[in-house]
Amino acid sequence: MSQRVFNFTAGPSMLPLPVLQRIQEEWLDFEGLGASVVEISHLVPEFKQVVFDVERLLREVLGVPTNYRIVLAHGGGALQFSMVPMNLIATRPARRAQYVLSGHFSRSALNEGARFGTVEAVASSEDASWAHIPALEPTAVDEDASYVHITTNNTMVGTRWHDFPDTGHVPLVGDATSELLSRRMDVSRFGVLYAGAQKNMGTSGLSVVLVREDLLGHALPVTPKMLNYTQLARDHSLSNTANTFAIYVARLMLQWIQTAGGLDAVEAANERKAKRVYDAIDRYPGFYSGHADAAHRSRMNIAFRLPTGELDARFIAEAEAQGLYALKGHRFFGGMRASVYNGMPEDGAQALAAFMDEFARTHG
Amino acid sequence: MSQRVFNFTAGPSMLPLPVLQRIQEEWLDFEGLGASVVEISHLVPEFKQVVFDVERLLREVLGVPTNYRIVLAHGGGALQFSMVPMNLIATRPARRAQYVLSGHFSRSALNEGARFGTVEAVASSEDASWAHIPALEPTAVDEDASYVHITTNNTMVGTRWHDFPDTGHVPLVGDATSELLSRRMDVSRFGVLYAGAQKNMGTSGLSVVLVREDLLGHALPVTPKMLNYTQLARDHSLSNTANTFAIYVARLMLQWIQTAGGLDAVEAANERKAKRVYDAIDRYPGFYSGHADAAHRSRMNIAFRLPTGELDARFIAEAEAQGLYALKGHRFFGGMRASVYNGMPEDGAQALAAFMDEFARTHG
Repeated sequence: MSQRVFNFTAGPSMLPLPVLQRIQEEWLDFEGLGASVVEISHLVPEFKQVVFDVERLLREVLGVPTNYRIVLAHGGGALQFSMVPMNLIATRPARRAQYVLSGHFSRSALNEGARFGTVEAVASSEDASWAHIPALEPTAVDEDASYVHITTNNTMVGTRWHDFPDTGHVPLVGDATSELLSRRMDVSRFGVLYAGAQKNMGTSGLSVVLVREDLLGHALPVTPKMLNYTQLARDHSLSNTANTFAIYVARLMLQWIQTAGGLDAVEAANERKAKRVYDAIDRYPGFYSGHADAAHRSRMNIAFRLPTGELDARFIAEAEAQGLYALKGHRFFGGMRASVYNGMPEDGAQALAAFMDEFARTHG
Repeated sequence: MSQRVFNFTAGPSMLPLPVLQRIQEEWLDFEGLGASVVEISHLVPEFKQVVFDVERLLREVLGVPTNYRIVLAHGGGALQFSMVPMNLIATRPARRAQYVLSGHFSRSALNEGARFGTVEAVASSEDASWAHIPALEPTAVDEDASYVHITTNNTMVGTRWHDFPDTGHVPLVGDATSELLSRRMDVSRFGVLYAGAQKNMGTSGLSVVLVREDLLGHALPVTPKMLNYTQLARDHSLSNTANTFAIYVARLMLQWIQTAGGLDAVEAANERKAKRVYDAIDRYPGFYSGHADAAHRSRMNIAFRLPTGELDARFIAEAEAQGLYALKGHRFFGGMRASVYNGMPEDGAQALAAFMDEFARTHG
């Protein structure tokens, strides 16, 4: 076997080694059933227990209030771009929704919302290359809107909302795909909070959706049964054959967070990891330039570049040769991007920072 | 580790042991990348190759004509109940579709279709407890219908279409969830042929859709980008983060079929497996009763019962004690159901038949 690399991919992302090893160990025999976890029905008691555990652990780890239902949906965050308006836009007669644009995925969410009602970009940082989170003035919130949608962390450009906006009685909807379970978030600030699982809680093809109960029951008639929050919540997400493997891995990830000391301990580790890399950027201000404004820096995705594209390419190649993998930035932005999700060990961030020091000394 | 059981679950179902072992062996290091297959981006060349291989192998193994596009969609067959009408119902101005009802899932498909146009049950065997496939008279086909939908194999009740109906110029849509890749099927008879992957080609949360090219480009405006066949075909199913694990397993399953001698060899083995169990049923006609009419028997799902519910329960318990697992029938029908998908070894069907002989001799 080749050596295990530090993998800075934006996702699907690195998993903690103990989680991977546990999957490997019990692969042929899940809980003494004589079958793999992927070979059993989603409706047997042993698998239903996995779903119930994921729901319970999410409540415990994240602090999900009792008036929120938990949905484990097929697809990733991108399918939520449609499920949110299908389920929520008819909560108010105007069928209007507002979107804060803070990156590429915010705009995708707005585009999907437009299929089902009237949507408006209420704030945007596009003119600033998405380098900051745009301010949302409380007076800009449309009192008749069904919701205001934000992207809590922007994967491509590496920005995040540190504090969430006050939208009054209009429900706030948060796409937390690239940060849910990486930090403490006050779920009660949101009407709906959702995330694809493949960044901080496991593997792809699954999203976790937290929905405030009073928003259920308003799905548009064109909403497929499989995309209906009310139906899925009622069925504990087993309305059809669920993505059993991803749900199983989500349980392991939640247990791993508990073993690591809970969400506060994981968040503290994530802060240390991000700080190591940002500190390296800031030590060489004429050499490395971080994309995000300092006040809006993501702790998950760190986008930066060198003075020339040639140096960027050399950085990426030399890093890879040292086992620092997948540092190439998104094709829309170029440069580098280091994603340091839950599964990235602190040693990985340290190794990257050390490499950045060395690279700056030799090429700066 | 406990002994590996013969697992007759209706799905997610048994996988061939060599496939499971291969996953386990390369779990921590996929193709020398130093990362698990679930830890890499869906957009890196190594994963794109997995997708291209699945497309190529499907064409080779199943004989998919060149004028069909292949889509690997999130969710299972149940999401196709919605994706079919979203993408196809507007191919004709009448926006009508016809459904042949041959079981519970056929009806679910019709119910989802009704959200997007006018749907009609053109034939049904519900009055006969779904024990046969209803005849579809060519004269019953609505010339202005956008499609006629059938369920090629009915998982719950154990029936299948042996030959597919002639619907003239109206495209036939087939839900082959519980039999695609288990037998030779003439794809060119269908406008769309789809299947969830968790029965005969791997794990859950993925469906394979074969779409005739001339049917693309007609999606309703309310179709989410993630559910749009045209978009997904154009993007080789990578419009968002795909269910990478299930796609990887699908490649292994397709390779396993090739190694086993191709689809004809796998079909012959499936015929032998089903025959063993049906022969056991037929040897004790007063004791075992098969649910399906003999002419419409599924080769994948074999539903049968004993003279009393008490005997059914005893059969299931004694079988389980002998390592014959998950034989309980669907809760809507009771009795027993043995699913003998691609992953069930011939030894498993033989063991079940031997147990049935023994049980009939001791309890009959």
